[in-house]
Amino acid sequence: VAAGDKERLGELLEPLHSADIADFLEQVDSAHRREILFLAGNKIDGDVLSELDEVLREEVIEFLPKEVLDEAVRELETDDVVDLVEDLEDEQQEAILDALEDADRVAVEQALTYPEFSAGRLMQREVVAAPEHWLVGDAIDYLRETEEDLPEQFYHVFVVDPKMAPLGYVTLGKLLSAKRSTPLSDLFEDSFRTIPVLQDEEDVAYAFNQYHLISAPVVDDGGRLIGMITIDDAMGVLDEEHEEDILRLAGVGESSLSDRVIETTKQRFPWLAVNLVTAILASLVIAQFEETIAQFVALAVLMPIVASMGGNAGTQSLTVAVRAIATKDLSPSNVWRVVRREALVGLTNGVIFAVVMGVIGVLWFGTPMLGVVIGVAMVVNLVVAGLAGILIPVALERFGIDPALASGAFVTTVTDVVGFFAFLALAGAVLL
Amino acid sequence: VAAGDKERLGELLEPLHSADIADFLEQVDSAHRREILFLAGNKIDGDVLSELDEVLREEVIEFLPKEVLDEAVRELETDDVVDLVEDLEDEQQEAILDALEDADRVAVEQALTYPEFSAGRLMQREVVAAPEHWLVGDAIDYLRETEEDLPEQFYHVFVVDPKMAPLGYVTLGKLLSAKRSTPLSDLFEDSFRTIPVLQDEEDVAYAFNQYHLISAPVVDDGGRLIGMITIDDAMGVLDEEHEEDILRLAGVGESSLSDRVIETTKQRFPWLAVNLVTAILASLVIAQFEETIAQFVALAVLMPIVASMGGNAGTQSLTVAVRAIATKDLSPSNVWRVVRREALVGLTNGVIFAVVMGVIGVLWFGTPMLGVVIGVAMVVNLVVAGLAGILIPVALERFGIDPALASGAFVTTVTDVVGFFAFLALAGAVLL
Repeated sequence: VAAGDKERLGELLEPLHSADIADFLEQVDSAHRREILFLAGNKIDGDVLSELDEVLREEVIEFLPKEVLDEAVRELETDDVVDLVEDLEDEQQEAILDALEDADRVAVEQALTYPEFSAGRLMQREVVAAPEHWLVGDAIDYLRETEEDLPEQFYHVFVVDPKMAPLGYVTLGKLLSAKRSTPLSDLFEDSFRTIPVLQDEEDVAYAFNQYHLISAPVVDDGGRLIGMITIDDAMGVLDEEHEEDILRLAGVGESSLSDRVIETTKQRFPWLAVNLVTAILASLVIAQFEETIAQFVALAVLMPIVASMGGNAGTQSLTVAVRAIATKDLSPSNVWRVVRREALVGLTNGVIFAVVMGVIGVLWFGTPMLGVVIGVAMVVNLVVAGLAGILIPVALERFGIDPALASGAFVTTVTDVVGFFAFLALAGAVLL
Repeated sequence: VAAGDKERLGELLEPLHSADIADFLEQVDSAHRREILFLAGNKIDGDVLSELDEVLREEVIEFLPKEVLDEAVRELETDDVVDLVEDLEDEQQEAILDALEDADRVAVEQALTYPEFSAGRLMQREVVAAPEHWLVGDAIDYLRETEEDLPEQFYHVFVVDPKMAPLGYVTLGKLLSAKRSTPLSDLFEDSFRTIPVLQDEEDVAYAFNQYHLISAPVVDDGGRLIGMITIDDAMGVLDEEHEEDILRLAGVGESSLSDRVIETTKQRFPWLAVNLVTAILASLVIAQFEETIAQFVALAVLMPIVASMGGNAGTQSLTVAVRAIATKDLSPSNVWRVVRREALVGLTNGVIFAVVMGVIGVLWFGTPMLGVVIGVAMVVNLVVAGLAGILIPVALERFGIDPALASGAFVTTVTDVVGFFAFLALAGAVLL
């Protein structure tokens, strides 16, 4: 393909959906990407740019001929342009804004004045609004007349009062099937709710998911209708939030497969640095028992098992807690019930693994007391792991820190320190 | 509230959305829940049942008066009934099916014949289909006439050929704004794609997210239209898939805050058991070097640091890889590029932390060679962690095993074994 056969490449890209073209560009390496853009730049339209990973957007925009870029940008709805330009550098942002028609440019610039990650950035300004006294027939006539200026996708007609405050909405299905003489207000849906323009996009996505919304009106401080958010935007946010949670839990910040070595190294570094500090803390605990270990080297062989089991049990509780906080299932009213459950689960699994490991310890090293020591340390560490796994994320959340980001480091520190200490201190007391 | 004040409870629940009532029931404990159901059972409608966590559904259904339950079930669309009954025990399932009208009952039973997690379980049978020769006016007249029997929510009119094969679809917005004389086929949307009834629900959700679908026709083996899937169903699946991934990565199977101690213990047990085996493997490696440790106890103090850093770096790579596989961003065409990147990232971070840890080792124990040993072991383990973190999930995926479920155990085994071995073997060779 990269042999410079322009027509063949054009044919190959032609039937692909813009999302698939974007994926294709993400998967080839940088040199090939440039060649493809050079040969088939005209296949890159606004939708492909929207779908591209942020990291690659700048690169692709830089290599696209100006006329292709301008054309691509003009095709997009304003909310997609906002999404496209918000992370670009000033120079590229300016170039794209220049390509827009004046009205669109103003709309995009206004959207950019709302804080990042707010409903204002997510919404599109194109909405269909109707006065409260309208009948179904009025609304249908209005839609037929304004055909050209309708949003590309819309699912509701919003009904507003004279001050533009949304009162309710009517689905297009109801509009189509009702009699022309029915007042719009007779067809209002129960699911109606408005979204404040400054609301966090995470809460917007939660509302869409929780209340099964398809579209919702966005209102300003005065309660006036200024735009709408549709479910596909909310689905995109939900997807990003999940991605963020899962990556943060693993100690990887924002990241993407398209990142280069240096960026990736930088993203991974902070968590590894935190882990080094916590690992050294655990080592300091071990160092307190150097003499005990010197007299009984089996302890050095077995101690990582206690710490590792605690770390795993802690990660389990922690992940369940972080998820429950994200989905708002964990609240002050049930937190103590969950804490009690985690402690009991830790105790139960602790006892089971204590017996198993105790037996293994005895068989392996032939010292019954060693089996008892590792068993007791295991129980202690699994109970502590269960408690830490739930209490640490809840506490972080209360201090306004994202529990997905920071909990892991705290929980494994606790389980390492407790695991090594319980095992070695007990061994020192009992075996020597 | 639980003081038996029936009216007050009714007033409190009245303004709540069914999803919020379900959340409320999930957050109180079992005894309170029964009391609430006893006092305000009539507030529990079909939507509340749909929103409830699976674990609690059986309990709530059991305690609801039969007439309330029957009423609740009859309100629901067939796809929601399928979702409600598919995990219930036979007896409860039968009771709910009995409450349905005959036509609905047949539809639900038919849906249950499709495999679990397939498009057939997700779809609703109510669709709006139009023959290919229809004009906009025909479609609108048809919608007006069949008002009563229309699906509660729909966004497209599907156009089918005489054999019921879907040819394209028209959005309701276009239908409302176009002239009555326009043929439906002039208004077809580009986004149109059909979904085979046996397609995995995960792939359905992927298609909705990737191609920004709102609704899509479901076809049987012969390509005939048999139902439709809407974006809110797909959003639900996406949410569940994410939940599954995040919990599986942490070694927690399906789980919910409503589970009891025994279920939770059982869910957590298998992964802890796997971890015990891998931890023992690592201990066997340490056991090979008992004499070395006995002569130089500082090794026992420092060895967990090397293993822990490797485990963390491995988890980072692994999580990125698992996500990329789930979003289909990692494919045979770019896997080697990503592997090379992970190795380089491991090398870079490895060298940085090797220097840091080497210096700490020297300062702490006053033995320059110990600093060199821990540094080299750190580099080796971080490179191996990067490689294992990407190659293990890719290999598991190729063998048809969910990488989210199994990768963690393999990766930490590799980093523990390599970490302990590299550090202790090198130390044995150099220091003694």
